[in-house]
Amino acid sequence: MTSANQRDLPIGIFDSGLGGLTVFKELRRHLPNERFIYLGDTARTPYGSKGKETIQRYSLECAQFLQTQKIKLLVVACNTASSFALETLIEQCSCPVIGTIDPAVRQALSVDTVRRVGVIGTKGTIASAAYDQKLRSSGRSLEIFSKACPLFVPLVEEGLYSGNIVEQVVEHYLSELKALALDALILGCTHYPLLAPSIVRFLGTHTRIIECSKAIALEVEELLEQRQLSRVVGAAAAESERYFVTDDVDRFNYLASLFLEKRPVEAVHVEHLSVA
Amino acid sequence: MTSANQRDLPIGIFDSGLGGLTVFKELRRHLPNERFIYLGDTARTPYGSKGKETIQRYSLECAQFLQTQKIKLLVVACNTASSFALETLIEQCSCPVIGTIDPAVRQALSVDTVRRVGVIGTKGTIASAAYDQKLRSSGRSLEIFSKACPLFVPLVEEGLYSGNIVEQVVEHYLSELKALALDALILGCTHYPLLAPSIVRFLGTHTRIIECSKAIALEVEELLEQRQLSRVVGAAAAESERYFVTDDVDRFNYLASLFLEKRPVEAVHVEHLSVA
Repeated sequence: MTSANQRDLPIGIFDSGLGGLTVFKELRRHLPNERFIYLGDTARTPYGSKGKETIQRYSLECAQFLQTQKIKLLVVACNTASSFALETLIEQCSCPVIGTIDPAVRQALSVDTVRRVGVIGTKGTIASAAYDQKLRSSGRSLEIFSKACPLFVPLVEEGLYSGNIVEQVVEHYLSELKALALDALILGCTHYPLLAPSIVRFLGTHTRIIECSKAIALEVEELLEQRQLSRVVGAAAAESERYFVTDDVDRFNYLASLFLEKRPVEAVHVEHLSVA
Repeated sequence: MTSANQRDLPIGIFDSGLGGLTVFKELRRHLPNERFIYLGDTARTPYGSKGKETIQRYSLECAQFLQTQKIKLLVVACNTASSFALETLIEQCSCPVIGTIDPAVRQALSVDTVRRVGVIGTKGTIASAAYDQKLRSSGRSLEIFSKACPLFVPLVEEGLYSGNIVEQVVEHYLSELKALALDALILGCTHYPLLAPSIVRFLGTHTRIIECSKAIALEVEELLEQRQLSRVVGAAAAESERYFVTDDVDRFNYLASLFLEKRPVEAVHVEHLSVA
C-alpha cells in the first residue's frame, strides 16, 4: 500500500530538449489530476547525433536531477535516450521508468494485419536498432524498414512544418519507404508529430502513422493504477507543473511555444564532474 | 625573448564541433612548421542555438582543457564562441587568443569600395551582433545586413552541399540579401564554406564571399612573429597534430571526412562540476 504522500508526488519527464513536450502535453491531457516536472536538457541538445556512452551519461544525469526533486515515476520522453539508456535508467532509478519504444511498438502492432512496419528517427535511434529488436521480439511475422531523418528535427525547430523545403526533405528521406507501401510508420522521435501532416500527404493514407505520446499516456495510467500511485482527486492543490531547462531560460520560450503554451521555467545544471 | 621550448609548443584550436576543421586545415596549410591540438566539443554541439551563459561556460571549459595540454596560442575556430566568449577567454587565458570576428571583418573591409555588407551565421552569432559592432567600429560608412541561417549547419552535417534541397534552403534564407546586391557577404560560421558554391550560384558574382579561415591563418602568423613564437624550421620533430573530441571517438570520423582526411582522435570530458 502506498502512502498519500507518495501518490501526491509528481511524474518526472525528461527529453534531450523540447520535443518531449509533445509527450508531456498528452500526459497532462490524459491525466489531469497528476503533477508533472519536465526537464529539457537544452544545453546539450540534440542527443540524436551523439554516441551511446554520451547519451547514457546525459540520461543518467537528467534522471538523477529529477530524482532529487522526488518523483514517483520517470518518463523518458526522448527516443534516442530510450533507445540507448532505458535499461541503465531502470537499473539506477528507485522509481518505475517508462520509455518511448515499448508503447510505440505496442500501438503499431495493435492491428493484427500489420506486416510491413517502418521506423524513422534520429541517427542514434536508428543505429541502436532498439525498435527493430522490440518489433522482432513480438514473434509476429513482420518486415521492418528503418531510416534516419536527421534534418527533421532542425526543420521543426525552425518552425517549418509544410511548404516546399519540408516537402523536398520528406521526399528525400521517405521515397524508398513510400515505394514499400508500409502498413504502419512509427514516428520514432518526439519532434516528428509536428511533421505528421506533411508525412501523411507524401505517403498517402494507406500507411498508419504511429505517434508514441498517446500510447505512453495509457501506459503511465496503467502503471500508476497497478502500483496504487495515482493521485487522488481532490488532493491538496499543489504546484501542478514545473519546467527546468539546462540552457538559458529565455531561450526556452520560442521553442516551447511551438509545442505548448508558455510556462514559467527554471534553469538548472545537471552535469557531474567527469574529467577523463 | 621566448625560449625554444615555448616556440615548440602547439597551437590550440577549439570549435563547438567539427566545423572548425575548415580553419584548422587552412592553418596547417599556411603554417606547416607548427604543431596543432584540435578540440571539438562534439558532445555538446551545436553552440549556435544555445544561450550566452551556456556558450561562455562551454568555451571556458574548452580553453581550460587546451591550456592543460600546454599551448602557445589559442584559436577560437567557432563564430558563436567568438561572438559571446572572446573577451572572457582573453581575460582567463595565459596565452594569446584569436577569434573569427576580427580577421573576417578585416578581410571584408580590405576592399575600399565595400559599402553594403551582409553577415550570415547561427542564431547565436547573429543575435550577439558581434559582427555588426566590429564592422561599425571601423568608422567606415557601411550598410550592414545580417541573417541567421540555422538549417545550414544540419545540411552540411548531412553531406548536402548542392541539389534541390540546398537550393531551396539557400533561397529561403538569402532572398532578401540577394535583393540588396551586397558588396560582401561574411560567412560567419565555420561550416558555411562548404556551401559557398551554392551561395555564389544564388547570389551571383557581384557579392564577394568572405571566409574567415585564410584571414585567421594570416593573423596567427603575424602574431607568432611579433611575439617570437614561430616554431623554428628543423626543430625536433614531434607529434605535429592531435585531435580530441568530447563525444564518442568513432562518431568523429564521418564528419571529419567531410572537412579533412581522417586522423587518429582521442576522447576527453571537459565539463566541470556545476550543480545549480
